[in-house]
Amino acid sequence: MATAQGVPTPEHFLLEMKGDVAVITLNRPEKKNPLTFESYAELRDFFRDLDRQDVIKAVVVTGAGGNFCSGGDVFEIIKPLLERDMKGLMEFTRMTGDLVKYMNGCPVPVISAVDGICAGAGAMIALYSDIRFGTPNAKTAFLFTRVGLAGCDMGACAMLPRVIGQGRAADLLFTGKSMSADEGLAWGFYNQVVDPETLLDEAVAYAQRLADGPNFAHMMTKTMLNQEWSMTLAQAIEAEAQAQAICMQTQDYHRAFHAFANKERPAFEGN
Amino acid sequence: MATAQGVPTPEHFLLEMKGDVAVITLNRPEKKNPLTFESYAELRDFFRDLDRQDVIKAVVVTGAGGNFCSGGDVFEIIKPLLERDMKGLMEFTRMTGDLVKYMNGCPVPVISAVDGICAGAGAMIALYSDIRFGTPNAKTAFLFTRVGLAGCDMGACAMLPRVIGQGRAADLLFTGKSMSADEGLAWGFYNQVVDPETLLDEAVAYAQRLADGPNFAHMMTKTMLNQEWSMTLAQAIEAEAQAQAICMQTQDYHRAFHAFANKERPAFEGN
Amino acid sequence: MATAQGVPTPEHFLLEMKGDVAVITLNRPEKKNPLTFESYAELRDFFRDLDRQDVIKAVVVTGAGGNFCSGGDVFEIIKPLLERDMKGLMEFTRMTGDLVKYMNGCPVPVISAVDGICAGAGAMIALYSDIRFGTPNAKTAFLFTRVGLAGCDMGACAMLPRVIGQGRAADLLFTGKSMSADEGLAWGFYNQVVDPETLLDEAVAYAQRLADGPNFAHMMTKTMLNQEWSMTLAQAIEAEAQAQAICMQTQDYHRAFHAFANKERPAFEGN
Repeated sequence: MATAQGVPTPEHFLLEMKGDVAVITLNRPEKKNPLTFESYAELRDFFRDLDRQDVIKAVVVTGAGGNFCSGGDVFEIIKPLLERDMKGLMEFTRMTGDLVKYMNGCPVPVISAVDGICAGAGAMIALYSDIRFGTPNAKTAFLFTRVGLAGCDMGACAMLPRVIGQGRAADLLFTGKSMSADEGLAWGFYNQVVDPETLLDEAVAYAQRLADGPNFAHMMTKTMLNQEWSMTLAQAIEAEAQAQAICMQTQDYHRAFHAFANKERPAFEGN
Repeated sequence: MATAQGVPTPEHFLLEMKGDVAVITLNRPEKKNPLTFESYAELRDFFRDLDRQDVIKAVVVTGAGGNFCSGGDVFEIIKPLLERDMKGLMEFTRMTGDLVKYMNGCPVPVISAVDGICAGAGAMIALYSDIRFGTPNAKTAFLFTRVGLAGCDMGACAMLPRVIGQGRAADLLFTGKSMSADEGLAWGFYNQVVDPETLLDEAVAYAQRLADGPNFAHMMTKTMLNQEWSMTLAQAIEAEAQAQAICMQTQDYHRAFHAFANKERPAFEGN
Repeated sequence: MATAQGVPTPEHFLLEMKGDVAVITLNRPEKKNPLTFESYAELRDFFRDLDRQDVIKAVVVTGAGGNFCSGGDVFEIIKPLLERDMKGLMEFTRMTGDLVKYMNGCPVPVISAVDGICAGAGAMIALYSDIRFGTPNAKTAFLFTRVGLAGCDMGACAMLPRVIGQGRAADLLFTGKSMSADEGLAWGFYNQVVDPETLLDEAVAYAQRLADGPNFAHMMTKTMLNQEWSMTLAQAIEAEAQAQAICMQTQDYHRAFHAFANKERPAFEGN
């Protein structure tokens, strides 16, 4: 993965900058954009390295050809895993877990733009995004059970109940059934359901609006949204007193006040 | 409680095998199926011992005569508790807590089929089930407050907010008011609301579909859904990397791949 | 803040007893009831001291003139904070955090009655209430990002996801956008949406019904609802076995049984 100005040139997915937004397109449309060992690893490294650069202010993940992602390919992933020993299996499950862990831990907002099939590891990429746009055609299935595995894959049992509630998560994870766009919107999985034609534009526009905002503060918001689930409420309140005091020493806070006082729009710089 | 082939013969509730599904029927319909000290204890032991057998692959809990369960009987439970000292009170509250703890910790999915009144400890049995079917007549009330007690009974304050959200849970637990079927469906308490006539059949069919699936993996899904609430997200992702690697060494995973490759339905065996 | 029979006489907000309910009215309607350093501190002290009195059985928080609260005033709070060093900033962020911590930890239910603008710290006061009433005009915005700050303010990243889910919380906290009354009701933020004309009466009536109930038990319900998020499910079940055993030794539990046996309404006394 070569690097120019902090933006990598991946081999196994498309990456295009639109303004300050890196648009990742999973691009094997003839098979509904399945993942391979190589694309998993390259996606993991992309999100891992986001804290080393200052060019990408937000990420949008989408799929080519009217589908988001069909998950791990049966012949390219499931079949070779059958031959692995425990050490080899855990190399794989940790790699896939690292992908969502780095999505979750990276310093910029991640927005998924989901049309069509969104299955297995694809559903997990959507789930560990901060914001999700869907279309009426979006069908999301955590179908690990269909291949004889458990619903606890890549952190599904941690995040899905926190997004849609414990009862609905149990149903989806035990059965592997599809969640429709209407269900996903009503349950809080999707933030917005929009036309397939405008899906990517709307997701990128949302991402750019965040990119135009106080990025350092967004990084703190993301960090705390994910850390505070395992704090007591009192610990969380103290943690936010510290986090926000840090943000009050940024120039963006000063910029916002002066813009307000001058009846202007603030121009945030992320510091 | 005598045992034949791993299936107990309870004295204080009905137990019938339908396929691989144990159907528990609370059966005092003239009083809307209240619990007694004896039925509490026998239900607790039933769920506690599920990890010692291999015959029951899923459990459905329902009530006779158009109601689920009216909770602890006023004269058979509340009255005698008035005479107890703290040691005696905690023997009771721990027994009731153990019932839901064993429902939560047992290795098979538990599905509640709820019609009519579902109150007090009955509401808690529904709440600690993995999946809930309701009917338009279902009325669920956590009415501990009505008898002068707190809403924190049998783990209600832990699980109800995780299923329907903190705000709605506070309202139900402070007031003891009924949650309607429509509310329960919209809020994620019920997975499905169906006709009273087909309620039990649909719940059993759902349970049997799970029973026909990869049971060992289901056990892992259930375990992780309940454990990961008190992990950090990073800990949960690592825990799932381990749990899924274990599942990848089951034969069911191999069976699923070979069935897929041969364009057949997999026949899972739970190992 | 002088005290008469346990009810303080605040300088920076209105406080009126209606029955056993203390009604707090944020009262700078010409500016949509913003908070100042002084009103923050006085509200914090009010909630902190609720465990020292026995007169106030529930609290309703509302705003004068058709709005709830516009948050921290730009010129009275944001501007002077620009001059503070880290020690001074943390004095402020800890004070604001202490307000919601004491709302959360105080022994009586807190009900917010929200009409019109509910923004910034105002939204946090609503969020850390146990119960929320809204009106069709209610517009709630966690707009810290608009002033260049993070969404993690006063425990927002801890409580908002627990009330409305992680995905919706991320959207509101990253963007600062308004949540409408319809959204708030569908998402579980509001318990009820009522007419502006009846808002306060309905909130007070709800609070008085709780005040007429078993107050000691309500205190325990509130405590456990907030503590159990950071327990394992097994720990929570044991904690409730202990908490409910304590409540079973109150006279209110006896009163409830005897009233039931005599076909009367119980008269609870909170002990």
